Amino acid sequence: MKSLLPQFLLSVPVLLAAACNVFGQDVPLSSETEECLGCHRELHPGLVASWEKSRHSRTTPAAALLKEPLDRRVSSDSISQTLRETVVGCYECHSLRPEQHTDSFDHNGYRINVVVSPDDCATCHSTETAQYGKNIMSHAYANLVDNSLYRDMMGAVNNNYHRSGNDLVKGDTDSRTEYESCLYCHGTRVEVKGLEARETDFGELEFPVLEGWPNQGVGRLNPDGSRGACTSCHSRHDFSIEMARQPYTCSECHKGPDVPAYKVYEVSKHGNIFNSAGKDFNLDNVPWTIGRDFTAPTCAACHASLLASPDRTVVAERTHQFNDRLAWRLFGVPYAHPHPVHADLKKVKNTLNLPLAVEMDGTPVAAYVIDKKEQQARNKRMQAVCASCHSTDWVVEHFHRLDNTIARTNALTHEATKIMMDIWESGYARGLPQGDNIFDEESERIWTSIWLFYANSTRFTSAMAGGGDYGVFADGRFQTTEQVYRLNDYLQLHRQLDAKAP
Amino acid sequence: MKSLLPQFLLSVPVLLAAACNVFGQDVPLSSETEECLGCHRELHPGLVASWEKSRHSRTTPAAALLKEPLDRRVSSDSISQTLRETVVGCYECHSLRPEQHTDSFDHNGYRINVVVSPDDCATCHSTETAQYGKNIMSHAYANLVDNSLYRDMMGAVNNNYHRSGNDLVKGDTDSRTEYESCLYCHGTRVEVKGLEARETDFGELEFPVLEGWPNQGVGRLNPDGSRGACTSCHSRHDFSIEMARQPYTCSECHKGPDVPAYKVYEVSKHGNIFNSAGKDFNLDNVPWTIGRDFTAPTCAACHASLLASPDRTVVAERTHQFNDRLAWRLFGVPYAHPHPVHADLKKVKNTLNLPLAVEMDGTPVAAYVIDKKEQQARNKRMQAVCASCHSTDWVVEHFHRLDNTIARTNALTHEATKIMMDIWESGYARGLPQGDNIFDEESERIWTSIWLFYANSTRFTSAMAGGGDYGVFADGRFQTTEQVYRLNDYLQLHRQLDAKAP
Amino acid sequence: MKSLLPQFLLSVPVLLAAACNVFGQDVPLSSETEECLGCHRELHPGLVASWEKSRHSRTTPAAALLKEPLDRRVSSDSISQTLRETVVGCYECHSLRPEQHTDSFDHNGYRINVVVSPDDCATCHSTETAQYGKNIMSHAYANLVDNSLYRDMMGAVNNNYHRSGNDLVKGDTDSRTEYESCLYCHGTRVEVKGLEARETDFGELEFPVLEGWPNQGVGRLNPDGSRGACTSCHSRHDFSIEMARQPYTCSECHKGPDVPAYKVYEVSKHGNIFNSAGKDFNLDNVPWTIGRDFTAPTCAACHASLLASPDRTVVAERTHQFNDRLAWRLFGVPYAHPHPVHADLKKVKNTLNLPLAVEMDGTPVAAYVIDKKEQQARNKRMQAVCASCHSTDWVVEHFHRLDNTIARTNALTHEATKIMMDIWESGYARGLPQGDNIFDEESERIWTSIWLFYANSTRFTSAMAGGGDYGVFADGRFQTTEQVYRLNDYLQLHRQLDAKAP
Repeated sequence: MKSLLPQFLLSVPVLLAAACNVFGQDVPLSSETEECLGCHRELHPGLVASWEKSRHSRTTPAAALLKEPLDRRVSSDSISQTLRETVVGCYECHSLRPEQHTDSFDHNGYRINVVVSPDDCATCHSTETAQYGKNIMSHAYANLVDNSLYRDMMGAVNNNYHRSGNDLVKGDTDSRTEYESCLYCHGTRVEVKGLEARETDFGELEFPVLEGWPNQGVGRLNPDGSRGACTSCHSRHDFSIEMARQPYTCSECHKGPDVPAYKVYEVSKHGNIFNSAGKDFNLDNVPWTIGRDFTAPTCAACHASLLASPDRTVVAERTHQFNDRLAWRLFGVPYAHPHPVHADLKKVKNTLNLPLAVEMDGTPVAAYVIDKKEQQARNKRMQAVCASCHSTDWVVEHFHRLDNTIARTNALTHEATKIMMDIWESGYARGLPQGDNIFDEESERIWTSIWLFYANSTRFTSAMAGGGDYGVFADGRFQTTEQVYRLNDYLQLHRQLDAKAP
Repeated sequence: MKSLLPQFLLSVPVLLAAACNVFGQDVPLSSETEECLGCHRELHPGLVASWEKSRHSRTTPAAALLKEPLDRRVSSDSISQTLRETVVGCYECHSLRPEQHTDSFDHNGYRINVVVSPDDCATCHSTETAQYGKNIMSHAYANLVDNSLYRDMMGAVNNNYHRSGNDLVKGDTDSRTEYESCLYCHGTRVEVKGLEARETDFGELEFPVLEGWPNQGVGRLNPDGSRGACTSCHSRHDFSIEMARQPYTCSECHKGPDVPAYKVYEVSKHGNIFNSAGKDFNLDNVPWTIGRDFTAPTCAACHASLLASPDRTVVAERTHQFNDRLAWRLFGVPYAHPHPVHADLKKVKNTLNLPLAVEMDGTPVAAYVIDKKEQQARNKRMQAVCASCHSTDWVVEHFHRLDNTIARTNALTHEATKIMMDIWESGYARGLPQGDNIFDEESERIWTSIWLFYANSTRFTSAMAGGGDYGVFADGRFQTTEQVYRLNDYLQLHRQLDAKAP
Repeated sequence: MKSLLPQFLLSVPVLLAAACNVFGQDVPLSSETEECLGCHRELHPGLVASWEKSRHSRTTPAAALLKEPLDRRVSSDSISQTLRETVVGCYECHSLRPEQHTDSFDHNGYRINVVVSPDDCATCHSTETAQYGKNIMSHAYANLVDNSLYRDMMGAVNNNYHRSGNDLVKGDTDSRTEYESCLYCHGTRVEVKGLEARETDFGELEFPVLEGWPNQGVGRLNPDGSRGACTSCHSRHDFSIEMARQPYTCSECHKGPDVPAYKVYEVSKHGNIFNSAGKDFNLDNVPWTIGRDFTAPTCAACHASLLASPDRTVVAERTHQFNDRLAWRLFGVPYAHPHPVHADLKKVKNTLNLPLAVEMDGTPVAAYVIDKKEQQARNKRMQAVCASCHSTDWVVEHFHRLDNTIARTNALTHEATKIMMDIWESGYARGLPQGDNIFDEESERIWTSIWLFYANSTRFTSAMAGGGDYGVFADGRFQTTEQVYRLNDYLQLHRQLDAKAP
């Protein structure tokens, strides 16, 4: 953040002059972007100010490519001559590939795209875009809405209800609700529904009407057919590496009881050090230098960033396939299992024909998950990060504990699932045997909370080597076992009731 | 915060000299305040140091009034000559309007008030005091304790219990418990109960005995008859605009599951940017300049502050009536509804004669809530803030989503209320039909959690355009529907039990 | 943090040169430590960088002892000549007292201990080590695992389960699970299990195999027989006083629903001020000067630090017996009670022969808890801290409210316990009367949540004079009473069921 300070103190008009001449270097703005700024600085001063604080406003791709490979923030060698010599402004991003962009529209004489997509960013950041395509996040939309079981959960959670006799009957899906609940993080399908005229400060203008917009979800389906939103983590319009490295960014989607990574981090030793000393970290440097730039990892350090030691030895390669250093998918449905082979999960099926990578007893379906060898390779990459600060015995035992916790939380989930099966088979709830939604009754929610919240929280705590209470009293083992008792009590109570004379 | 830095490094004695001569200007202390400081600096070094860091210790009202209207922090033109020419010290605030102050007492030859009230602050900040009087917060005390339904909830939550046969019998109200539970935020009634002598470092002295003190709640009833405590947000004794603009200030009362504004903010994109980049924001500037001073809103930006664009165009006026930009009261009891017309809710009644601004089916009581036109006017003021960074289609669709979520959460609350009515009518709990407390049985708490916690959390998430999980798995739609199942199960179980032979 | 800044910007090699010559002074490194750094800087760059940022890397004990007593950070007068004249490096700590250290091993020609213990730190910090030994935390391991009731809870929470007919049968204890759940905070027993050879970058080397390692819990049993881990709060390898004074450090173990100190702090006025203004606090100064260094307390200010006023009057002595200023043990099992007399609780027994310092009706067992006089002495020490910023009437009434809340939450716990007794005696659960585990059934967990979570949360909110909602809607009185209703409903439902014809 330090480096932003002097510029931050400049007034905006001065800053813009600076944008053309920063530190004695000529940093040219395209005439198109200059024209954009002419109106939009007045209309959206906050938006423009964010961009003015960005690296994009101060650097040309040509200058970015002059850096040593290890220090480089762009990965495409073939940036066009036109784009190379100006800073990365409004027009440079919002005008790319108009023939792919169904959201392209005529705006004061220019073809402008509303939505800038990962395939646009690939112009300069091709490696990151390609990696992200192998990230399970890039498929977060279809992996959710095209999975019949998850679709059932979405319905049970998001739809309206009305009473009919003793029953609660689910109403229809409501897209606006879905956009701001599940799809807020997973991403929406953004579709062009036509054009509409709007009165503006500059007269009547036409704009595309977009369904599913606004949205910044990680698996957004964009109007150019691409997947994802780089802005999920690199917030508009400063697109900063610093912000993406802050744990707050990940917390937007990873704080709930299902994936409590941020909550666990906050009370882990790593989070304690970050919270206590992080204001003096350099979160902007490339490569990110262990010890010199930071002394405790954030999410990005373990899962994404290019890390080097002070002597410029690479400790971990940059990756936007965030499971690259992850052997396990902790967030199991309903069991933790080895990471899926492919980011696109549409083919995944278990022997009950359910769209899950595990059987109902917890056995992974081998065809869809990575094998032991690949798990070891991923662990090895992660362990190289750990070893920057920890001795071998720490690291080895840490991974033993995690494996143990995965096995034990899965075993308890299995016991709970057997109770749930009995409840279904006794007809105290309608679920798998009846071909019914398995998420819309009280007992089903008790069962769901066991694996979706408490077993997951316990595993995240184990995996992040800290945040003790999230594995005990705060959505941890205490709550897991409590819900198992409650589920069993539910079954026993209804059996007892059945046994009574009518 | 930056501006505090140099002064912060000065030792306290040097600072005090500086208080009389800051940046070459003569900044005089009144002789009375000098006398106060003589003892209290030794007695309460922390308290005095906070004041020494304040703007009050460095500025005279006369100097404050010299600023351009847009840059001004005081709003009263008629500050008395006596007060104008010294900095705002102990005596300047603690000696005002003694005839109104029942807490005024003789202290070493001066008349001193213990409690400084909004009506005292109005000496320099009259507009803010007047606005705050129209803020529903200023009536938070009576709106709570004089509402018979809320009073029932307070009793069910705060009172002691003892068992009598199979029943739990509520004991008496305990004022100390109320002072630190509900009234901690809502404010207490502070009353003078006499004088008592106390042995001090400076001999025996007499002090007023105050019931309901200490307290800094937003609707405090003060010994001078005024309402509120500016110190709720502008903490003693630095009374800083910076602190009031920090979201942490609002989080003191707006983090619980009933009004989870801060929790939602934290994991919204706005909160992410604030947490990641906020340490470089200028939170002290007046007017608060979008883009230059900050690039993501805090609570104050949307709800209170005077905002300007870098060219000094006013984007939003300062207001201390915080619903000035709010069309809806999201925190519905038990349904979200348009904001009440008046801050004082004592006349509010629905057709069942319940002290609520809605009927039990969710219809607002027109006489007590603002109309569509006023809702639109408030939305328009808010949208001017949004538009500083967001395009029209974002803003418009955001408000559509919010309206939709209000309608849908209200509809689900209505279904739950119908189940609750059946439970009451079947006698499985005693409530409205029996004229009984509706918050003191298990099924009533299930019902209450639906609208008080989970529907509210879902609405706050919608309203703040982020914090996805607080609308899904973290006190959101997942928990709302879960509690609806649970409530219905409660009813069905007891019906089933009734049907069994005795 | 400010003081770290210049050094932070230096590259590591330059910094090391500086380590020998800081600010023109000769700061010598021992030749042994120089040899350690030779390999370990390359192996563990993050670990070494933390140490390089520490005071240990820049100061010799001799220099530390030159300071005025009030400014001193070391408390041992008798530091050996060998240790006095070099900075405190790897070898200085990891080579102490090898005859006590069962984890001592031969490493490249040196005897090295893996685990540095409080008794090693006592070399320079003897007073702190002695105080910590009287801190209940130092006995957190045995106080937990040797208490038969707590052991039952650990089993019910951590062990595996399998179904047997209608019952859930607890499986065996699993040490890896315990290490990362309860013992993560309480500390493990670290034992040497032999030596193993490992292939390293520097050839094959032998290392001790440690059971219960890694761990940084507060009551860790170390291989040298000592108790505790200074690194719980003074994180490796910068061992900073600043970090220990940050509330984030305490939050690692004190954020769960059982001991929600950090959550309460965060939304208290103190926490608000810290969060808003704390980045300008000087958290490193000794003595910690009220007003000048900080204007709101962190955990350390009230419970541990040496505090002085700007004129160097001591306001509170440094203590590592953190209950030194605490009259009550709020975290009651199952009732809050006066603090235990001894840190080691192994002798504690009530008249039912249960290992608790209270009877089942809440009466403290006089023999094991401090008396009123000692409570008053502790309150007086705490009140001296409060009085730095608050007037007498505030402070006095604050402690009245706390006493009241302790009495009332205990009374409600007593009512709940009577319901639980009825459930046991009716055979709807198996517990005390049956000599059975009292934590492994649904009704028992309802009862447990009342005193373990909600009564505790209510008391912490009271004790910390803020965080209102943690005493009301967020794990507070609302939830306490809700669980009492639920427990009573459980009893009534089963009685009703019993009364039905079979």
